[in-house]
Amino acid sequence: MKDLDKYFRNIIPDHMLDRGITVLETYLKPIRILLEQRSIPEEGWNKESIKLFLKLLSLMDTDKDPIAARVGEREARMASPYIAELAQGFCHGIGRSGVIATSQPKAPGGSIMYNLANRLALYAIKKFGVPNAKGAIVFPLATGMSIALALAVARDITKCKKVIFPRLDHKSPLKAIRLVGLTPVIIEGQIYGDAVRIPPEIIEKAIDKETAAILSTTTFFPPREADDIKAIAKIAEEHQIPHIINNAYGVQSRILMKKIQGAIDAGRVDAFIQSVDKNFLAPIGGAIVASPNKEFLEKINQSYAGRGTAAPVVQFLAAILTLGVKGYERLRDEQEKNFKLLKELLLKTIEKYGERVLNVENPVAIAISMTKRDPQKVGAALYSLRATGPRAPSSKDWGSCTNEYNCPYLVLNAAIGVKKSDIIQINEKLEKALQQIKPN
Amino acid sequence: MKDLDKYFRNIIPDHMLDRGITVLETYLKPIRILLEQRSIPEEGWNKESIKLFLKLLSLMDTDKDPIAARVGEREARMASPYIAELAQGFCHGIGRSGVIATSQPKAPGGSIMYNLANRLALYAIKKFGVPNAKGAIVFPLATGMSIALALAVARDITKCKKVIFPRLDHKSPLKAIRLVGLTPVIIEGQIYGDAVRIPPEIIEKAIDKETAAILSTTTFFPPREADDIKAIAKIAEEHQIPHIINNAYGVQSRILMKKIQGAIDAGRVDAFIQSVDKNFLAPIGGAIVASPNKEFLEKINQSYAGRGTAAPVVQFLAAILTLGVKGYERLRDEQEKNFKLLKELLLKTIEKYGERVLNVENPVAIAISMTKRDPQKVGAALYSLRATGPRAPSSKDWGSCTNEYNCPYLVLNAAIGVKKSDIIQINEKLEKALQQIKPN
Amino acid sequence: MKDLDKYFRNIIPDHMLDRGITVLETYLKPIRILLEQRSIPEEGWNKESIKLFLKLLSLMDTDKDPIAARVGEREARMASPYIAELAQGFCHGIGRSGVIATSQPKAPGGSIMYNLANRLALYAIKKFGVPNAKGAIVFPLATGMSIALALAVARDITKCKKVIFPRLDHKSPLKAIRLVGLTPVIIEGQIYGDAVRIPPEIIEKAIDKETAAILSTTTFFPPREADDIKAIAKIAEEHQIPHIINNAYGVQSRILMKKIQGAIDAGRVDAFIQSVDKNFLAPIGGAIVASPNKEFLEKINQSYAGRGTAAPVVQFLAAILTLGVKGYERLRDEQEKNFKLLKELLLKTIEKYGERVLNVENPVAIAISMTKRDPQKVGAALYSLRATGPRAPSSKDWGSCTNEYNCPYLVLNAAIGVKKSDIIQINEKLEKALQQIKPN
Amino acid sequence: MKDLDKYFRNIIPDHMLDRGITVLETYLKPIRILLEQRSIPEEGWNKESIKLFLKLLSLMDTDKDPIAARVGEREARMASPYIAELAQGFCHGIGRSGVIATSQPKAPGGSIMYNLANRLALYAIKKFGVPNAKGAIVFPLATGMSIALALAVARDITKCKKVIFPRLDHKSPLKAIRLVGLTPVIIEGQIYGDAVRIPPEIIEKAIDKETAAILSTTTFFPPREADDIKAIAKIAEEHQIPHIINNAYGVQSRILMKKIQGAIDAGRVDAFIQSVDKNFLAPIGGAIVASPNKEFLEKINQSYAGRGTAAPVVQFLAAILTLGVKGYERLRDEQEKNFKLLKELLLKTIEKYGERVLNVENPVAIAISMTKRDPQKVGAALYSLRATGPRAPSSKDWGSCTNEYNCPYLVLNAAIGVKKSDIIQINEKLEKALQQIKPN
Repeated sequence: MKDLDKYFRNIIPDHMLDRGITVLETYLKPIRILLEQRSIPEEGWNKESIKLFLKLLSLMDTDKDPIAARVGEREARMASPYIAELAQGFCHGIGRSGVIATSQPKAPGGSIMYNLANRLALYAIKKFGVPNAKGAIVFPLATGMSIALALAVARDITKCKKVIFPRLDHKSPLKAIRLVGLTPVIIEGQIYGDAVRIPPEIIEKAIDKETAAILSTTTFFPPREADDIKAIAKIAEEHQIPHIINNAYGVQSRILMKKIQGAIDAGRVDAFIQSVDKNFLAPIGGAIVASPNKEFLEKINQSYAGRGTAAPVVQFLAAILTLGVKGYERLRDEQEKNFKLLKELLLKTIEKYGERVLNVENPVAIAISMTKRDPQKVGAALYSLRATGPRAPSSKDWGSCTNEYNCPYLVLNAAIGVKKSDIIQINEKLEKALQQIKPN
Repeated sequence: MKDLDKYFRNIIPDHMLDRGITVLETYLKPIRILLEQRSIPEEGWNKESIKLFLKLLSLMDTDKDPIAARVGEREARMASPYIAELAQGFCHGIGRSGVIATSQPKAPGGSIMYNLANRLALYAIKKFGVPNAKGAIVFPLATGMSIALALAVARDITKCKKVIFPRLDHKSPLKAIRLVGLTPVIIEGQIYGDAVRIPPEIIEKAIDKETAAILSTTTFFPPREADDIKAIAKIAEEHQIPHIINNAYGVQSRILMKKIQGAIDAGRVDAFIQSVDKNFLAPIGGAIVASPNKEFLEKINQSYAGRGTAAPVVQFLAAILTLGVKGYERLRDEQEKNFKLLKELLLKTIEKYGERVLNVENPVAIAISMTKRDPQKVGAALYSLRATGPRAPSSKDWGSCTNEYNCPYLVLNAAIGVKKSDIIQINEKLEKALQQIKPN
Repeated sequence: MKDLDKYFRNIIPDHMLDRGITVLETYLKPIRILLEQRSIPEEGWNKESIKLFLKLLSLMDTDKDPIAARVGEREARMASPYIAELAQGFCHGIGRSGVIATSQPKAPGGSIMYNLANRLALYAIKKFGVPNAKGAIVFPLATGMSIALALAVARDITKCKKVIFPRLDHKSPLKAIRLVGLTPVIIEGQIYGDAVRIPPEIIEKAIDKETAAILSTTTFFPPREADDIKAIAKIAEEHQIPHIINNAYGVQSRILMKKIQGAIDAGRVDAFIQSVDKNFLAPIGGAIVASPNKEFLEKINQSYAGRGTAAPVVQFLAAILTLGVKGYERLRDEQEKNFKLLKELLLKTIEKYGERVLNVENPVAIAISMTKRDPQKVGAALYSLRATGPRAPSSKDWGSCTNEYNCPYLVLNAAIGVKKSDIIQINEKLEKALQQIKPN
Repeated sequence: MKDLDKYFRNIIPDHMLDRGITVLETYLKPIRILLEQRSIPEEGWNKESIKLFLKLLSLMDTDKDPIAARVGEREARMASPYIAELAQGFCHGIGRSGVIATSQPKAPGGSIMYNLANRLALYAIKKFGVPNAKGAIVFPLATGMSIALALAVARDITKCKKVIFPRLDHKSPLKAIRLVGLTPVIIEGQIYGDAVRIPPEIIEKAIDKETAAILSTTTFFPPREADDIKAIAKIAEEHQIPHIINNAYGVQSRILMKKIQGAIDAGRVDAFIQSVDKNFLAPIGGAIVASPNKEFLEKINQSYAGRGTAAPVVQFLAAILTLGVKGYERLRDEQEKNFKLLKELLLKTIEKYGERVLNVENPVAIAISMTKRDPQKVGAALYSLRATGPRAPSSKDWGSCTNEYNCPYLVLNAAIGVKKSDIIQINEKLEKALQQIKPN
């Protein structure tokens, strides 16, 4: 856009125009740099630059062509211009019926947008802890649905039916396994002190001729700890079994990302999947499927049946441009501090009530014992005190990932984006709740 | 909001205020009526009413609560307020990890929004031609992906592996079948004059013990005609086989909707699936799964693994409110007129060039023979003349749904939302293209 | 922005990118042409181009500079980013304390915006009927206030106190005269058949040594006709008296603009002033002061005390870009047709009720006699029938511009922007009102 | 809007709906409270509440009535819906041709908006330091133009021609005096140490039979100090002369507001006028005319000729709702701190360069001597270092308000809204500039 300045000459005095162009450039230059470097900017962008950039792209799509004749069955005709605004002008969605992450001839701008989003997703994965990732695609799907796509590829490669699944008490992965016609082989969690772990040797033992994949997990609520994905990766490699990692909210954690890098270095990882919203502070609805294996990823790329909604992709792109590399690292620093603070505050608070912080390794969430009071009631009290997020598992055997856990408990998260004020408030509200609810 | 008027008293003269309230009411009243009747309004809404309504709903979600303490791993924290605007404030997406079309406790407003969208989707299906539909869900998925969900349910019910698929030369349905671990049994199309049809008796013959479902189709490009879904439904019922109908852009056609209603009346239909964007003039990305069978639909409801993006749902809701029942019927009237006009114009134009309109039953698209010129070249010429949509099948055996079609051809669509000017222009552009490209 | 395409290379296939750039260019090219030609485009702009253009300009202002240190008393600091949006980012207003239409160093973008708006205002005045205008300035003031500025200049030039004012029963011009310390010499209207006119010879007779200016008028409600500004211009020249024309809603009328051109050709016109909103379909609040005399205009330019709000200027600019030359001429054509239609319909309707269309020359408004019914009551009935605009003068001597008019009457306007449906409806509503109100 | 909740029943579970309504209420309740109390809220509003409120109001105006017939010459017809958005939907502007601050029948919503803005303006004036104000009107005019309106009223009351004007080297007030046909009697500033003051006794001596008003000033750049408005008010009362105070950016200063209150208590003040943007962090373009004298204010109310643009009024209203009482007081606290900080930093910095802070009473701005270097050059250096605001008076006799000031100087402002970072940066940039520019 540099040539714009010549068009402005002789309207206002040159020294003013120069100043104006200087200011304007602070908004346009980031766009040029992005297009040249195609990586996440160090400094986050101003909203104005993002809006301008998205606008320029969406004005490239053929549905914006005022003189075109449109005689397809799907021409991104809109019920009104307002409806197009709801999609930021990316009315053609993403992909083609054959392949999701490919260029759509009717949507040059939307295609560039999606291509850049995928490049930035890969850049994020590499920069934020997994440098040996080789590809990444943002899917307009929940993490669970994206896991399903990856599992389907594993199924087709192996022609097998069973997924070894170190137990995780969350419905989505199980649904993912079943959606693509596979059968979960659930490996029970075992108790080690306070922690619940699934020993790799038991996983290995479960492997048989029908094993299509191992689906391991990094992020869950304590007392469940992250799987030993390095050991699992080695097992997967040895037995030549696809290994999919559910890394739902792991990008925020330097520790967990390092574990993934370690797993890739040590053995076999076919894909690792992360939520856009849980990691990048965007609305719910997208997932990044990353992989050290380009061929495997390409097969996933070809498995989405149809064209997808552009919304989660646009939202991811805008969010990562808003944050920039530095902004994201700052958020991770804050997460670490807030996590530490939460632990400290809880330690002080709950001792008085005869409870303790469970000794479980988890970089995001903390579990506290709830032996003197009904955790359900404490949870309900917290809800009416306008606290959202605390989990009070409803029964002994769903949530802890083992059949019989030691004690009832309550889980609190200090996830990325949490504010110091949230931490301080939740501690106060917890104390209030503990006072409100009588001991058993 | 009726009580607002008392708050305004004694600011301006009463007779002016009364007038002001009268005008304001023309925007607020439709909202109240929608909430009371929970059906598509007869008259389409003004953009202002829609924006106001969506704003009120999104301001109910817990992420808007300024005094809440948020300690979950997923609290719809946004990278910036702008990112929330990209989702019209519906940052929590839709559904729960267990079930997509259910209320999400963190998102009361988003849940109401989704619930209403689903009610209006059902209302649309019933009103626009299939009164015996019993349920409908808007999925944030491509039509193909939604078909996959339905097929997975059929698979689980029947415990079988094969899908009988009257041949359709489109990648998405095949991908859908394979995604959920099923195998397509493709029934070849046969030529009847110009038309390509798949005789129901051959479909019936293909049924065996391993048949999980029949996937029939209403909408495709000529020379392929719509499947005889009434006959197929009878066969499905007789053999107790789930029957899924791909009705991608069929809502726009009164004829096709009547066929679906007829199929349901005559036999078995487990689900019929339609694109949000192709039928309702919204951005690409959503599909409506409808069914006369509540149980079957409920199983599909439980098969999406995770929470989905709200975008396609919001877009559908806004589009259908924009149109209203009358607006939609008007669009269907226009589509019918434009289709007729396209046929008339083409008849006149192409005769001079030694071509003819193929005699194929199709309410949306028209195929013309392209025997004297390379259809690929004509297609390319049309593209550079800024016409989007015409299809010039690239080879004899993909596109016509039969192994050897009579002649090369070109397909043009007069789909819903097409303007008379598009039709007139395409005819002119086609003539130009025919003049540009020399006969073979 | 032409160089943008090189930045996009190697993201999507070249032929798609070329198409994308082609479409994008349809939005960017008008901006470049505007900056080169600095005149009103023939074809009106799309909203997207206007938004993009205003955004680029507002991002030039120094308050957008993220690294500036601001230590003035007026730095366009905003209570929140939303407040800046209310001004489309033009937070610095327009002008300097010394001169309104000049460049403001803190606002290079705002200054370009204002400069262009003034160029386009002059272009409009010339193109739409007064080619010998030599300058024009958009003031962020009501027409009346702008007249006041012009009168103040006349006062300073002549050092005189009185303004000869062919009677116009509208408060604003009188207020304008008095605001700048002048005294109106009102020349009564006289009745010629149905019409009320002020004969130029009486105006001439009123001139004396204390005459500072003549303030004539082109647009008013019948029975008052437009002043004979050609004759008045001759008188003004002969007596060397400044002549200001109140052309409030005259740009819409080819006849009235021709009269102004004629007056300038024949005699003296120092300034003619027109409402932005009444002529250009923009929100109320701005006026264009135009003149064939650059020096006189420059003095007006220096008379606004302070910096003004940018809003009416931005609104004018956006409105005229929306319309384009062709759009404006189309609106004028429609106005003429609708005016004719209104006359025809009224003729038919009111005869039955014993009333007639008054024979008064006026290109915009029509008066009908209201001898059998109380015009006040008919007006009130129309108001409750949701008709806005009809005037039912409340007394014999205010409104008609003469002391005793022949009969009571009602005025209806077919002003620019009126729709055919307004005309048809008002005729029906008038008939309803006439039926509701009993004859005297 | 309370009844909305009943409409939502039976869509989502009641406890979720209750929570949703609770959250929604945090946005709606402030609107109800505002309408009940009609005063500035203690806590500033969220942008969402403001947008919702302005939207509800603008949807009351008759131009939004979809079924009205519009046959006036001014019906707020818009060139496109986008143009209406530029005015936040307040297309009818404010006022009637007779009176600006009155209800406009075509704009019930706009009229309520303006009425509330004026109430909140009065509330602000009283709350922020002048409790004995009796009325206030927000004018869509620069401060200078608003002073002109007040002076015109003084002229009409006194039938006199001269305005006694304690010298202020700013063009706007002089333009204001002259615009309404008055003659300034400039009273020269005198030097007291570093300060420039105009002794009240000299002002008193200047009064004669032709005195129409005294125009005093509270805010200007040092070395000029605020006028002794208490003494002037006493003089004005004694001699029965209207007294207008130019309080351009005085609301931000508790000291200056107290002085105005003191002047009103002690003598005569007819109107005091303050800039909307300089005091309330809104875009440039509006002024608040306040008065302890309702009759005088009413006359000003009747002096604006025509209907005005609504923009500055909407912007003021939105800004004051954004800030709230507490937010405003917080800004004043910060201003005081930043002013102190600026002084401290300058004291340290400039001593090294042989300069000193001039000893002048001023709560907002600071002057430093510039004896060793050309202040123009230092100013230019600062401009290229991207500092905006510093003033380096260009000649000895314009700026200091006296004919011969002691020494060259530079002025820096720590006005309301200035950030600590601005202060720190300006000090650094000043030091850089002093190093860049060689001593004389």
